Amino acid sequence: MLEKAKTGGKPRRGSKTKVRVRVVEDGRARVRPDSLATEEPMEIRLVSGDARQTVAVTMRTPGADFELAAGFLYGEGIISSPEDVKKISYCVDPDLDAEQQYNIVNVELRGDKDYDLRSLERHFYTTSACGVCGKASLEQLELRGCPVIPSGPEVSAEVVYSLPEKLREAQGLFEATGGLHAAALFYAEGELVALREDVGRHNATDKLVGWALLEGRLPLSGQIVMVSGRSSFEILQKCLTAGVPVVCAVSAPSSLAVDVARQFNVTLIGFLRGNRFNVYSGHERMHT
Amino acid sequence: MLEKAKTGGKPRRGSKTKVRVRVVEDGRARVRPDSLATEEPMEIRLVSGDARQTVAVTMRTPGADFELAAGFLYGEGIISSPEDVKKISYCVDPDLDAEQQYNIVNVELRGDKDYDLRSLERHFYTTSACGVCGKASLEQLELRGCPVIPSGPEVSAEVVYSLPEKLREAQGLFEATGGLHAAALFYAEGELVALREDVGRHNATDKLVGWALLEGRLPLSGQIVMVSGRSSFEILQKCLTAGVPVVCAVSAPSSLAVDVARQFNVTLIGFLRGNRFNVYSGHERMHT
Repeated sequence: MLEKAKTGGKPRRGSKTKVRVRVVEDGRARVRPDSLATEEPMEIRLVSGDARQTVAVTMRTPGADFELAAGFLYGEGIISSPEDVKKISYCVDPDLDAEQQYNIVNVELRGDKDYDLRSLERHFYTTSACGVCGKASLEQLELRGCPVIPSGPEVSAEVVYSLPEKLREAQGLFEATGGLHAAALFYAEGELVALREDVGRHNATDKLVGWALLEGRLPLSGQIVMVSGRSSFEILQKCLTAGVPVVCAVSAPSSLAVDVARQFNVTLIGFLRGNRFNVYSGHERMHT
Repeated sequence: MLEKAKTGGKPRRGSKTKVRVRVVEDGRARVRPDSLATEEPMEIRLVSGDARQTVAVTMRTPGADFELAAGFLYGEGIISSPEDVKKISYCVDPDLDAEQQYNIVNVELRGDKDYDLRSLERHFYTTSACGVCGKASLEQLELRGCPVIPSGPEVSAEVVYSLPEKLREAQGLFEATGGLHAAALFYAEGELVALREDVGRHNATDKLVGWALLEGRLPLSGQIVMVSGRSSFEILQKCLTAGVPVVCAVSAPSSLAVDVARQFNVTLIGFLRGNRFNVYSGHERMHT
């Protein structure tokens, strides 16, 4: 029998988030409801008596949250058996609103054993003062001074259709290994400007933005970034800080990627395959 | 004209790594040469006078390393214009061997400006004493006491062929959103044991291993883990610490994933599609 996720309580937000999406196909657009994978930050805290230590914050899909916390601590070598864990629970700090409580998991370890926390330094990731939830992540972008992207450019559906093929053609390395993610920059008329590859999508995007920075080309106003695979909060964050108005991905965006795009007026396109794509945000720039 | 990567010098290891791979197709196996995307850690150091501060270590594909460093610092809000960067160079510390020198990038910032390094705490990631290279990453696994996986189980090609379809069938959520990675556990005879999903492959694997830990099922001897997408160093590390003898992925492994698999006797399978897959390591377990 298939073992289902049993632990992790009942998170406030489910693993799916409903949105309305504009589907562009063969030059025609229609609006329909769609489901996205929810993406929300989760903080893992070690609790021992009154002491609490944040050991990680990770962007995750809600569900099996206690297993995620346990698996993370096991993978890092902090715990080695189920007996090391006294209790796993959501944070019930009354100072936090409900959404945040379900994004903070407390792991209480058995007190009669020494745990080696040094290895955790490798992944240490402190939390923001303003809490751990998608809304707070968006507020942090505002606090960092991320601008709302101004309107324009106008981009035709024909140009968008053409991007995956242009990316594949330029991605010579992909042909050979099939193992690399890519991030590519295009002008609004569809001309490829630059392409960077990496085993990680985030690194490929950092390489592309780093190139633009060193060349004095920022902000990337009026231009399009296309990434292989999916789009996430981090991809949108990197494109937003670089001033990119249009972000396209081969696959689905996460819920939080769509939230960032809508708040900062980024046109976000997903499922770009053949003569078809979905527009999750900023369809005003699309000329169909 | 397409802008190619110009910065980052000439890394010692290229973006591709050659390996010999066993291709299993329709029940027959043959060996052929193959290229993998290289995966190696890269450390980013801020340099100011004699002071050096490590700000991040990321697993990356060598190439455009200086752009990666600049893009990372820009994305984190540390630098905001090319003028903030005085010099970017590989580490030339004579105490380090050549391989490590090309995995450490020094970024010298202009001294007459204050940089806000607080946000970096979010991503802080200290380096090991033994240096930054793929070999050192493997040595760390040994130091952490990761065992070489004992021989067995025997797995038939028919079972391996069947895994992607079983994973897709069970991945109800995938049908709805197309946005989720999955990690699934199977018995050697092909029966699905458990499946976990997340926007991140690493989180899906942590959820699966965390479930097994909390259920007292570790080590996962004699069992198979299958992940959607690609396999990387981190995926192999998580499976290795859980004692998994066979790891399958829909797409390509990275070079360092193969290195881990070979050193610790994990059977690593990639490009598992239809009646075809590649065996990168541990083919003794495969019964074709």
